[in-house]
Amino acid sequence: MVEPIKIGICGLGTVGGSAFQLLTRNAHLVEAQVGRPILVTHIGTRRNNSNCSVDDTIIHRDIFTIAAEPTIDILIETIGGCGTARELVEYAIDNGKHVVTANKALIAEHGNALFERARTKGVSIVYEAAVAGGIPIIKAVREGLAGNRIEWLAGIINGTANFILSEMQSKGRTFDEVLSEAQQLGYAEADPSFDLEGIDAAHKLAILASTAFGIPLQFDKVFTQGISTIELQDITYARELGYCIKHLGIARRTDHGIELRVHPTLLPCSHLLANINGVMNAVLVAGDAAGPTLYCGAGAGGKATASAVVADTIDVARSLANGIENKVPYLAFHHPYLSDEQILPIEEVESGFYLRMKALDKPGVLAAITQILSDTGISVEAVIQKEPKQNENSVPLILLTACTHEGRLIDAVTTIESLTSVSGSVVHMRVELLSK
Amino acid sequence: MVEPIKIGICGLGTVGGSAFQLLTRNAHLVEAQVGRPILVTHIGTRRNNSNCSVDDTIIHRDIFTIAAEPTIDILIETIGGCGTARELVEYAIDNGKHVVTANKALIAEHGNALFERARTKGVSIVYEAAVAGGIPIIKAVREGLAGNRIEWLAGIINGTANFILSEMQSKGRTFDEVLSEAQQLGYAEADPSFDLEGIDAAHKLAILASTAFGIPLQFDKVFTQGISTIELQDITYARELGYCIKHLGIARRTDHGIELRVHPTLLPCSHLLANINGVMNAVLVAGDAAGPTLYCGAGAGGKATASAVVADTIDVARSLANGIENKVPYLAFHHPYLSDEQILPIEEVESGFYLRMKALDKPGVLAAITQILSDTGISVEAVIQKEPKQNENSVPLILLTACTHEGRLIDAVTTIESLTSVSGSVVHMRVELLSK
Repeated sequence: MVEPIKIGICGLGTVGGSAFQLLTRNAHLVEAQVGRPILVTHIGTRRNNSNCSVDDTIIHRDIFTIAAEPTIDILIETIGGCGTARELVEYAIDNGKHVVTANKALIAEHGNALFERARTKGVSIVYEAAVAGGIPIIKAVREGLAGNRIEWLAGIINGTANFILSEMQSKGRTFDEVLSEAQQLGYAEADPSFDLEGIDAAHKLAILASTAFGIPLQFDKVFTQGISTIELQDITYARELGYCIKHLGIARRTDHGIELRVHPTLLPCSHLLANINGVMNAVLVAGDAAGPTLYCGAGAGGKATASAVVADTIDVARSLANGIENKVPYLAFHHPYLSDEQILPIEEVESGFYLRMKALDKPGVLAAITQILSDTGISVEAVIQKEPKQNENSVPLILLTACTHEGRLIDAVTTIESLTSVSGSVVHMRVELLSK
Repeated sequence: MVEPIKIGICGLGTVGGSAFQLLTRNAHLVEAQVGRPILVTHIGTRRNNSNCSVDDTIIHRDIFTIAAEPTIDILIETIGGCGTARELVEYAIDNGKHVVTANKALIAEHGNALFERARTKGVSIVYEAAVAGGIPIIKAVREGLAGNRIEWLAGIINGTANFILSEMQSKGRTFDEVLSEAQQLGYAEADPSFDLEGIDAAHKLAILASTAFGIPLQFDKVFTQGISTIELQDITYARELGYCIKHLGIARRTDHGIELRVHPTLLPCSHLLANINGVMNAVLVAGDAAGPTLYCGAGAGGKATASAVVADTIDVARSLANGIENKVPYLAFHHPYLSDEQILPIEEVESGFYLRMKALDKPGVLAAITQILSDTGISVEAVIQKEPKQNENSVPLILLTACTHEGRLIDAVTTIESLTSVSGSVVHMRVELLSK
C-alpha cells in the first residue's frame, strides 16, 4: 500500500469538525486527485465535537504536541484568533510542517512574518479558507488570473453584513430588528462588531489585495467603515435613485497608489453585485486581459469553509506526492518581487457620493448647498427634495455627486454643515459603478 | 541572469496574437509570479498578425519546426480544429514539450489519447482556455473545489447563443433578426452552426464534466440541441410563467448514471444564471461541501482567452521553475482512478417540461390532453390557454409539467400529437430549477 500523507487538525469546532468529516467522507475522491491517500491521524482539541465520529484518530488535548508530531506532514489550524493560533502555526513551521489555515485575522495581521518564517523552513502556508468560504477566490486571483495585471477588485465578503442589508432592503426592516433576527438564526455572533464594523471584511480585503497586486499584507492601512449607522431611509432614497447599498471591500490600483477600503457603497441596482443577497459572498475581479470576472457562493459556514480547507490540503498534498514544495508563492508573487507601492490615504480616493441632510424648506437653501459643491469643484448628478411633514419646517434633501476626491467632498460637507439652514450632520456614502 | 523559460506559439490569430501581446506586456508580472522570466522565442504562423509587433522573435512558416525546436520548453497551440492542430500537439508531446492549448474540439474529441501520450512522455497538457474564455473554471473545478464530491454543474458556455437569446428576450426580436446583427457585430461566425447547434457548448461540457466527475472525455455521448428552433412566442410564454429560456450545458450525477446534455432550458427568472445576458458566460458548480458556486465573465474574445492561455503557461512554468512536472492530473483525477460510470441516455433523464401546442378551441380538449399526461404519470403545474385570434378556431395551449422521465414525456407527446383536436407537433423544452 502507498504510504498516506498524514494530517493533524488543531481545533475541532465548526470548521475543523467539518474538514475532518469531509476528508473522511470523500477520502476516495481525495486519493484519486492526489495519487496518494490522505489520512487524518491526529486531532488536537480541548473539547470533543459531537458531530464528529473520530474513530481511531489520536486525540491530544495539547495542540502543540500535534505540531511537533514527527509523522505528520500537514497541520490544519482551525482554532482562530491571533493568540494561541499564532504560536501554534509558528511552532508547526519550526517543526517543518506545511500549514493549512482558515484564519483570516492571523494571515492579515501576521502573514508577512509567518511567510518569511515558512520560506526559511521551505514549507507552505495556504489560506484559501480565510477569504469567502467555499469560493476558491484566492486560487482564482493567485493562479487563474495570473496572466493579468489586476486593476481592481470589489467584493461582498462578509455574509452577516450582507444578510442584514439585504433584509433591510427587501423587507423595509430596521438595522436593529434584522440584527436580532440574524443573531437568533446564528448568522451573527453575540458580539457582532467584528462583522458589522468591517474588521472581518478588512482582514479579507487585505489578503485579496496582496495576492492581486503583489504587495505585502497591510491590514492596518485598510480604511474601514461598518454598516451599523445605515438608516432605512438611506436605503429607500438610494433605491429611488436606482441604487442599492452594499457593504463592499474595494482594492484598486491608481496612478497615485493603491486604494484599500471597506465601507457601505451605493451600486446601481442592475449591477451583478447588487443582486447578491442574504449570506452569499461575491468577488468581482477586473484584469487587463480577462476583464471583470465574478466569483460567488457561500462565504461562511462549516461545510463551505471546510471545502476550502480540504482543497488547500489537496494542493499541498499534490506537491508532497511529487516530492516537492508548493510551486505557488505565498502571495502569488515571489518575495523579491513584492512591490512597495503605497496605499492611498482615504482623502485621496475618488468616487461619487450620496449626501443626505436635513435642510430648511425655504427658497435659496438648495441653491446655497449646490453653490458650495460647485465652488469646491463637485458636480451634482441628482437631487431629491422631499415634501415637509406636518409641523416640520425642515425636509430631507438628498444629492448624488459626480466622481470627486474624498478630501474635497469632506471640505464641502463641513461648509454645508455650517449653514444655519442645515441642521445636524450630513450623511455621506460612496457611490461606485464598478463597470469596467 | 536567470535562464528564461522558453515558449513557442503556433498560430498567431486572435488568440495566439493576444497571448503573445499579454506575455510581452506583462512580462515583469509574469516573472514575479514564476520566479523566472518567460520568453516567447519562436512563433509559427503562415500569416503575419498586424496587431503584433513580434520584434526579434523567430518566425517559422512551418509550425512543426517549432514543436521540434530543442530550446523550447512550452508550446502554445492556438491554431484550432482537429486536423493540423492534433498532429502538431502529438509531435510536440513526442518532442517532450509541455502543451498549452485553447482548442476545445481537440481536447473534447481527442483528449483521452493525447493525455495518454503526454503521460508516457511526462509532459503537461493544459487547456483552461478551452472552456469559458477568461473565467478560470477548469482551475476552480479541478483544484479549487477538489475537496468536494461535485453533484452537478450547469453553464451558459456559448456567448453567441446567449447573446441571441438575450436579445430575443429583452427586445422581442426574432432569431433571424438577431442572428444577422450578431454576424455584423462579429459575435457570430459566417457559418454559425457550431455555436447555434450546441456543438461548441457540448465540447466544453464534455471537458467540464470529466474534470468534475473524474470520467474520461465522452463528447460523443453529450445530448445536444441548439437554439435555432426557438420561437419568440416561446420566450414570451415562458416569461408569463416566470421563466427565462437559456441555452445550458448540464452535467449531473444520478444514481443511475451521469447526465450530459446541452439544450434550451427554462429557468426561473430570479435565478442567477437567468440574469447572465449578452456574450457573457457563467458556470454554476454544486459541490457537496461548498454548495453552489458561480463563476462568470467574458467567455470569448482574444484578450479573455489569452488570459487563460497565459495563466496555464504560468502554471506549467511555475512547475518547471521548480524542476518538476505539473502536479495536477490532466483530468483532476489520476489515471488509474478514472471512473467508468455510464452516461445516462437522454430518455432516462428527469426534468420538468414546457409544452406548447395548437389545439382546437372547444370544450374537452384541455381535459383530453391533461388526461393523457395524467395517464402517463405526469403532473401538470401550470396552464396558459390563449384566446383565439379572429378567424382561427385553434389556440396556443401551454403547459408546464412537474419533474418526469424524458422517455415518458415523449410517449405522452406522441399520444397528444395523434389527437385530432391538436394540429402540428408539440413543442417541448426542459425546465430546470438548479436550486440545490
